[in-house]
Amino acid sequence: MSVHAGTFFSSRWVERPPGLEEIDPVALPEGFRAAGVACGIKPSGRPDVGILACDGPEPSSAALFTRNAVVSAAVTVSRRADAGALRAVVVNSGNANVSDGERGLETAAAMAQATAAALGVEPSQVGVASTGVIGVNLPRDRVLSGIETALGELGPGGGELFSEAIMTTDKWPKRASLELSLPAGTVRLCAQAKGAGMIRPGFATMLCFVETDARVPSETLERLLRAGCERSFERTTVDGQMSTNDSVFMLASGAAEVAVENVEAEQAFGAALDAVLRQLAIEMTADGEGARRIARLVVRAPAGDAERVARSVADSPLVRCALYGGDPNWGRMVAAAGQVLPASSDPRIDVWVGDVQMARASAVVDLDPAQMRRAEEAMRADEVDLRLELDGGEEEAELFLSDLGHDYVSLNSEYST
Amino acid sequence: MSVHAGTFFSSRWVERPPGLEEIDPVALPEGFRAAGVACGIKPSGRPDVGILACDGPEPSSAALFTRNAVVSAAVTVSRRADAGALRAVVVNSGNANVSDGERGLETAAAMAQATAAALGVEPSQVGVASTGVIGVNLPRDRVLSGIETALGELGPGGGELFSEAIMTTDKWPKRASLELSLPAGTVRLCAQAKGAGMIRPGFATMLCFVETDARVPSETLERLLRAGCERSFERTTVDGQMSTNDSVFMLASGAAEVAVENVEAEQAFGAALDAVLRQLAIEMTADGEGARRIARLVVRAPAGDAERVARSVADSPLVRCALYGGDPNWGRMVAAAGQVLPASSDPRIDVWVGDVQMARASAVVDLDPAQMRRAEEAMRADEVDLRLELDGGEEEAELFLSDLGHDYVSLNSEYST
Repeated sequence: MSVHAGTFFSSRWVERPPGLEEIDPVALPEGFRAAGVACGIKPSGRPDVGILACDGPEPSSAALFTRNAVVSAAVTVSRRADAGALRAVVVNSGNANVSDGERGLETAAAMAQATAAALGVEPSQVGVASTGVIGVNLPRDRVLSGIETALGELGPGGGELFSEAIMTTDKWPKRASLELSLPAGTVRLCAQAKGAGMIRPGFATMLCFVETDARVPSETLERLLRAGCERSFERTTVDGQMSTNDSVFMLASGAAEVAVENVEAEQAFGAALDAVLRQLAIEMTADGEGARRIARLVVRAPAGDAERVARSVADSPLVRCALYGGDPNWGRMVAAAGQVLPASSDPRIDVWVGDVQMARASAVVDLDPAQMRRAEEAMRADEVDLRLELDGGEEEAELFLSDLGHDYVSLNSEYST
Repeated sequence: MSVHAGTFFSSRWVERPPGLEEIDPVALPEGFRAAGVACGIKPSGRPDVGILACDGPEPSSAALFTRNAVVSAAVTVSRRADAGALRAVVVNSGNANVSDGERGLETAAAMAQATAAALGVEPSQVGVASTGVIGVNLPRDRVLSGIETALGELGPGGGELFSEAIMTTDKWPKRASLELSLPAGTVRLCAQAKGAGMIRPGFATMLCFVETDARVPSETLERLLRAGCERSFERTTVDGQMSTNDSVFMLASGAAEVAVENVEAEQAFGAALDAVLRQLAIEMTADGEGARRIARLVVRAPAGDAERVARSVADSPLVRCALYGGDPNWGRMVAAAGQVLPASSDPRIDVWVGDVQMARASAVVDLDPAQMRRAEEAMRADEVDLRLELDGGEEEAELFLSDLGHDYVSLNSEYST
């Protein structure tokens, strides 16, 4: 996939904001230590426990979680934590710690406790995240011994192993380290994310950790993070499935002694955060379990319709199989749109694949062979542009989706309890 | 699949009503003629135009159509027809006649007109149905010449070719002929259906034609057909996709001179119709594009929740991949249920696979190896029973679903415009 090769901002759908410079993608900002170790949860022996600790002079934080009613014990414990005063996050992969009742809750609490004790903070200042198989007991001894090892290895160079310790079926680690020039000085903005499959609103089975050494009040951090997630993770769908474990944590250390307090700094910082989250969200979609290619779907529709038409089209298995096959099958898009519109509404829908208009007022446009070829080529690109416009459209919704191919089936029929 | 081998009522989820006898599955009731011919719409050269004509002394009819806002020109023309006074239905497969604007509407109207003229009835007494690829011009000349040929071949022995002329990706023809003993005498009840893929509420890309030689008032026919569809086709889902073309036509000839007019006869006739439609719906699910196995999901939940929880679980690609893999992955079912419940509701969900309880109050039940083996065996059967019970459940919803496997992807990424 082009999106993980080379530089970080590789998607043509992400505009790189001014004043940003990419540095070593596993570097952390000042005031952060991290570690990633293997404790034996993953049968593969790959890293499966990670810790991120913030030692900055003026720390602040924000956190967002899934909206699924069934949640991981990690999410339950993290929700009870002090979202604005986090000093660390402890995470395990390979097991989601979902549906294990009291035993699971006690394990998640013990993870926070062990981390807090070693770092000299309160358990309520530690976020917990888990990702992996659901409905299976998370072995408490292993994860606690992994946490002990990780605590001993915490260091400023731990970003690489930390970003690997959060992976499950991800084909590549998703991470970035950037330096951002603000009027008052330069700050670092770094992130590590995982996510592939079960991606959708409420943002996905995705975990994302964002760090900065800027000084940002927790309320500002929370506002910027929420807006950024709405424009990134909330706009992706791999299979319409909302996870029990989605969590985004953002921690600021203040170690750079550059404040994000005025409008100008906030705008620049927010734009950089948006671009980072958007690129990560697109990478997650591109790494959507077994994805061959991804699409950006834009739907313009009368008020109230754009979002649900976009969801219906993007989550349609038939549309997603057509994307996998590189087939500009616009009829399936129109049918999926019609499924969520009133039966009597007789919608008039224009459809574009790339820059080729394939339908006008829900009827086929007769294309010459060269135009047809251009549509087919657009549908076979790594990043495909799809656009639906409904008569009277005044509202726009954008979604990033992945295709539905054989590898999705293989991964999800063989990846078992 | 066991469901198409041997006798018609092969699913263990269908109870065979009393007084029913299976006869030659392609036989038609008295007062019906049919034909199926190939006119070249299907590249395979298989039959693709069919006509069903009712010549009975006291004819009546009923028809139901998709609720999709985007519909085939065939549905538009059929909706304008006189649903209670139909004398014939003309159908083509291989092309859905969707999204071709005025040209498509004229073709559908011409199909009705040509059939009506030859049979000496009004065009408003002819239903039209199409199924196949969408967004592609239906070649009018071919379909009209096919209709002309079919009209010449209409006969009481045409049921077999008619049932083949309605197939698209179906792996086997779905049809039944039954004799039903009513107090006033014996009547025939016959049906031909097609459907595989794009199956869901509003019942599916499915066509179903039902014939009887009983004498049934159109209002009774409509009521019985609607109730039967609600308990059959409306309860199936292959991929959550609602078609633009779903149509069910039922015609009664009255030729047996046995009336379905009193409560007793109506109940017996309705029960037989229900069983036929339910078996056909299960066959469609089992023939859901590329399906290896199917499941019956029963959800018991507080009022208002059962239906959407059942839909969310049955349409989850992750649940359907687990079904394909024969993996009793109940965690995915609980997660899919949680997706449509309020985030703060902390639902307590019990889950059974076959007769093995795998989760209690959303937490894993520790099973001994023999129980685990029994759950795995239940998940690998042709017909799998899944059950979710939510705390406080007082409402029940039932859905039949198919798995999501490699053949679904192949069929839908290669079956192209």
